[in-house]
Amino acid sequence: MLKVPDHQVAGHNADGGKLGPLIDESGRFYKPLQGDERGSNEVAFYTSFSSNTKIPDHITRFFPKFYGTQLVDASDGTGMQPHMILQDLTFDRVNPSVLDIKMGSRTWAPQSPEDYINKCLKKDRESTSVSIGFRLSGLQVFESKESGFWKPGKSEVRSLSTDNVSLFLKKYVSSNPSHSEPDCAFASKVYGGSTGILSQLLELKAWFEDQTIYHFYSCSILMIFEKGTAINGKSTRPEIKLVDFAHVFEGNGIIDHNFLGGLCSLIKVISEILITPKDCVTDGLLEDGQ
Amino acid sequence: MLKVPDHQVAGHNADGGKLGPLIDESGRFYKPLQGDERGSNEVAFYTSFSSNTKIPDHITRFFPKFYGTQLVDASDGTGMQPHMILQDLTFDRVNPSVLDIKMGSRTWAPQSPEDYINKCLKKDRESTSVSIGFRLSGLQVFESKESGFWKPGKSEVRSLSTDNVSLFLKKYVSSNPSHSEPDCAFASKVYGGSTGILSQLLELKAWFEDQTIYHFYSCSILMIFEKGTAINGKSTRPEIKLVDFAHVFEGNGIIDHNFLGGLCSLIKVISEILITPKDCVTDGLLEDGQ
Repeated sequence: MLKVPDHQVAGHNADGGKLGPLIDESGRFYKPLQGDERGSNEVAFYTSFSSNTKIPDHITRFFPKFYGTQLVDASDGTGMQPHMILQDLTFDRVNPSVLDIKMGSRTWAPQSPEDYINKCLKKDRESTSVSIGFRLSGLQVFESKESGFWKPGKSEVRSLSTDNVSLFLKKYVSSNPSHSEPDCAFASKVYGGSTGILSQLLELKAWFEDQTIYHFYSCSILMIFEKGTAINGKSTRPEIKLVDFAHVFEGNGIIDHNFLGGLCSLIKVISEILITPKDCVTDGLLEDGQ
Repeated sequence: MLKVPDHQVAGHNADGGKLGPLIDESGRFYKPLQGDERGSNEVAFYTSFSSNTKIPDHITRFFPKFYGTQLVDASDGTGMQPHMILQDLTFDRVNPSVLDIKMGSRTWAPQSPEDYINKCLKKDRESTSVSIGFRLSGLQVFESKESGFWKPGKSEVRSLSTDNVSLFLKKYVSSNPSHSEPDCAFASKVYGGSTGILSQLLELKAWFEDQTIYHFYSCSILMIFEKGTAINGKSTRPEIKLVDFAHVFEGNGIIDHNFLGGLCSLIKVISEILITPKDCVTDGLLEDGQ
């Protein structure tokens, strides 16, 4: 039995009989192939990436596992349609806080069709992509058992100003995310430490400084952690995953300077949250977050 | 007595009664202010930068010294016009080999006028800026006393393909730059070593990963070295300098991910030239180049 995922924060959603991804009870995520070349391009990427022996293990862990494609009864009632079978990234999580960040100041590849480039360029300029090198696509932050998740609307998230992107990256690690002055209570546990998100982003950066195999246009970094688990003794387990590869192209010996520039910008913004004590960070800087 | 510079490889040139920079005999370079806001913007940058105590010394050395502005008899015969007085970067050089690289996959600032953005975007897409994150603007390479400098035409340089950018970065450090198979005879001396260009680029990169004061749109990295001096016992003295700040704007707390991405790409291309022995590099890898 497939069902609609609980913790999706961006992208097409299967709610209300639309076409969107589904999950099963064994930890698999079924993503319908987009009908145009984007679907086949994403399958081609996963196929290439999962069989590429040059990708080191500490990098493959940042990507969802890929189990092939399969015809699945689509969520929009159109019958059996091809789906990619991927790892369900929130399968083993209780109340995960999730943030989707679309990377790069440019979401279009040089070889894309002209009308697609113009559409992307407009979105890039209207969002923070051009100015900061990335934009937030969606997020949910678990607040408490009583109030549940704080999940701002997509249009609010997409129209954030530069300053508010930094504010939302603080809200993401706060016990009071819906407040205008977030407390950053979980900043050091989630962003800091040797297994925290900043460390993972730095590992990813080192790979992007060297790899010339792929250029990742319009790809997202997902951040995932669990907040409530500090209470029940489990770890926050902060992690990053790259998702959405419909616009990945061959690098042809050139690094992905567009993704890398945005990644360096994200690293800087998160570093500032960790080292700036004013109105944030309650329990130590850069300490190990487990 | 002011005269036209000998070693200019890009930008407006004062030859033939046009408006361009002039030099004196004491090592100063007189750059006419562009009439629109670009001139005043560049003066504003030099004034800000030269008085900013937060810029470390190992970074200020990568910028031309600034001595203020002065009315100078312009090269185009229009009488006394305002000029910036800068350091003449090739003053103490004999037969310098010079390469001008315009940095960033995007040469326009988000706040620029719409028609200017469209003009820049077209040039960025037609050149290697979008694909590689930088483009070559001009170069001269000293070949020999007999043949003098190899100096390809500006339109040839600006229309280079991705592969040819790498080829020209090899030609720049070759004893036979005009040949189709350059020997990279000076690669390790110029690009390699603890004082070589790669080391300097890495120092600049570390600063760009952190600094959020300035965003450098349409700015160039100049590379300069002397080739003939291996013979007469003097050093090659490879160095990089940043030039052209008409489109520098405030960073407002965000790193210059556009310049940084292009810089990482340039670093990767030069690293490949140093570590790939095939058809290049004759006398040891990454050895000290003095």
